[in-house]
Amino acid sequence: MATAGAQRSARTRTPVSGLRGGIDLGGTKVQAVVVDARGAVRGQDRQPTPLDGGPGAVVEAMATAMRNAATAAGIPTSQLLGAGVGAPGAIDSAAGTVADPPNLPWKNAFPIGPELTKTLGTTVLIDNDVRVATRAEYELGAGRGYPSLLGVFWGTGVGGGIILDGVPWNGQGAAGEIGHTVVKMNGALCRCGRRGHVEAYAGRASMEERARQLIARGHKSDLLHITKARGADRMTSGVWARALAGHDKLAEQLVDRAVEAIGVGIASACTLLDVEAVVIGGGLGLRLGQPYVDRIDELVRTLVFVRERPPKVLLASLGDLGGGIGASLQVGSSAPVRHHVG
Amino acid sequence: MATAGAQRSARTRTPVSGLRGGIDLGGTKVQAVVVDARGAVRGQDRQPTPLDGGPGAVVEAMATAMRNAATAAGIPTSQLLGAGVGAPGAIDSAAGTVADPPNLPWKNAFPIGPELTKTLGTTVLIDNDVRVATRAEYELGAGRGYPSLLGVFWGTGVGGGIILDGVPWNGQGAAGEIGHTVVKMNGALCRCGRRGHVEAYAGRASMEERARQLIARGHKSDLLHITKARGADRMTSGVWARALAGHDKLAEQLVDRAVEAIGVGIASACTLLDVEAVVIGGGLGLRLGQPYVDRIDELVRTLVFVRERPPKVLLASLGDLGGGIGASLQVGSSAPVRHHVG
Repeated sequence: MATAGAQRSARTRTPVSGLRGGIDLGGTKVQAVVVDARGAVRGQDRQPTPLDGGPGAVVEAMATAMRNAATAAGIPTSQLLGAGVGAPGAIDSAAGTVADPPNLPWKNAFPIGPELTKTLGTTVLIDNDVRVATRAEYELGAGRGYPSLLGVFWGTGVGGGIILDGVPWNGQGAAGEIGHTVVKMNGALCRCGRRGHVEAYAGRASMEERARQLIARGHKSDLLHITKARGADRMTSGVWARALAGHDKLAEQLVDRAVEAIGVGIASACTLLDVEAVVIGGGLGLRLGQPYVDRIDELVRTLVFVRERPPKVLLASLGDLGGGIGASLQVGSSAPVRHHVG
Repeated sequence: MATAGAQRSARTRTPVSGLRGGIDLGGTKVQAVVVDARGAVRGQDRQPTPLDGGPGAVVEAMATAMRNAATAAGIPTSQLLGAGVGAPGAIDSAAGTVADPPNLPWKNAFPIGPELTKTLGTTVLIDNDVRVATRAEYELGAGRGYPSLLGVFWGTGVGGGIILDGVPWNGQGAAGEIGHTVVKMNGALCRCGRRGHVEAYAGRASMEERARQLIARGHKSDLLHITKARGADRMTSGVWARALAGHDKLAEQLVDRAVEAIGVGIASACTLLDVEAVVIGGGLGLRLGQPYVDRIDELVRTLVFVRERPPKVLLASLGDLGGGIGASLQVGSSAPVRHHVG
């Protein structure tokens, strides 16, 4: 196609826009942004994630979102300094592949980076979605100015990212999984198959499962009606927020339980890591917002080991765009490093 | 005094021995070692910790132990390259002070470093006891060869130290407190006043308290008899080991509970940090030894999030001398650093 041809030849020119692309790949939507050198969003677009058609269709939706965001910013994608992707699943940043992404339609490692690089005419880098969102809040959001940060993403599951004195701590590649730390030995069954994890109490999927069980056992709740009325097949963050607004007792109980589990999990993580701040994002975290972050903050202050200087517990400030903005920060920065040195 | 005068003048000479001193300050004993450049122990001495006489008496016992260890190594303390102290409590390494050390007879910051420097005629540095013990296992013990390490010290309490890619992670100064991470929300009361901590189940002091409660309520156990027969007023690690050897049911139950809490706490810490290895030391850890470390290892393998490559869970290999050896490693190394860089 003519457009693709123009983009290919554009790759040989030096991009002069100073703009970076970022794509947040989720199970329901693809969010693309164009970000300038100071981190301001200059264009954006959102596409539904196609769940038929395999990884090829998903890559095409990502390319469309990125092209539209670039158009909104007034340039072709080939003029971007590059683009970054934040994706769930097992990421190989060097190869640019994503394997076994939860809620997405493929298993084996798929070369999203190389495919998008070809399609968009600009170099595309890939990292873990939670990790890039943590970095965005650290560099440009609520975590700005704190040397070390724990990012907690409260949504379908509960993910986490760690930055220690400015550098992501990834461990052997999977550090930060606060959702799968234990808050209650032999407690509730987690979707990962083990018991008592933060996510077993606070992950939206686990909360929904528990709500459906209790309703089936005769507990009264409007959660099912609200879900149906919204035409949703899942209890989205909006469904929970609506139920809380209507003082639905069951929703209140389950959210209280979630808040407690997240508060305990964060307190333990901070007792171990002794970081200055915690940023809470994710679909449910953003939707429930400041009043619930304040409740988590209060719990953490009570529970953390060094009570004289508890970590700041903050609501993510980049909202829905944090993932895309964080993804864009991969461009032009050095590769993630894991080494401390003097 | 003549000795002190000789030592003061000795400070102006360059020490040529290549030997370092290390002092592990505990609530019951002071352990001093002299260590050569390869980490081998060339002299050692142990003194009881005087609990009357305040910090001055404790410093004198530390000086005596260090002098005796140096004599055993064939040199005066003034010929040491320097000496390091590992101490409990709130440490200010720059000022060389120790404040509010648990089980020791003072509260306000006391200048142990400057006092010992004067007395021993060699520069004395101070750091946290758990931190230096973790470093010793990392550099010279069971943790050798693993890039990142969690040290867990299972004794009266449960302490921990973190090394990430070769450098201690201290956070704002108190990182690593795995004993005060929660394994059971609203669970057993910890000596720190909060609930459900690893230490509330696994700390020897909490185990003893629970044992005495249960015995008072009519549970049968030899723990009290064994304690008395040993002339101890506390259930030492040796008392627990003896009770287990005699298949004491109550001791078995309480140790099982401790093993579970430690296993769960380590699994959560490794899910968060994703380190390659965990080393278990401390009075009770060393006394119960490999069979119990194997049980903890099995639990961690089952419970950690990335089961395909669980961390190695290892018994500390430097034994009782690890604290002193680790303390000595402060000498001639750069100041502790907290920064990751590329």
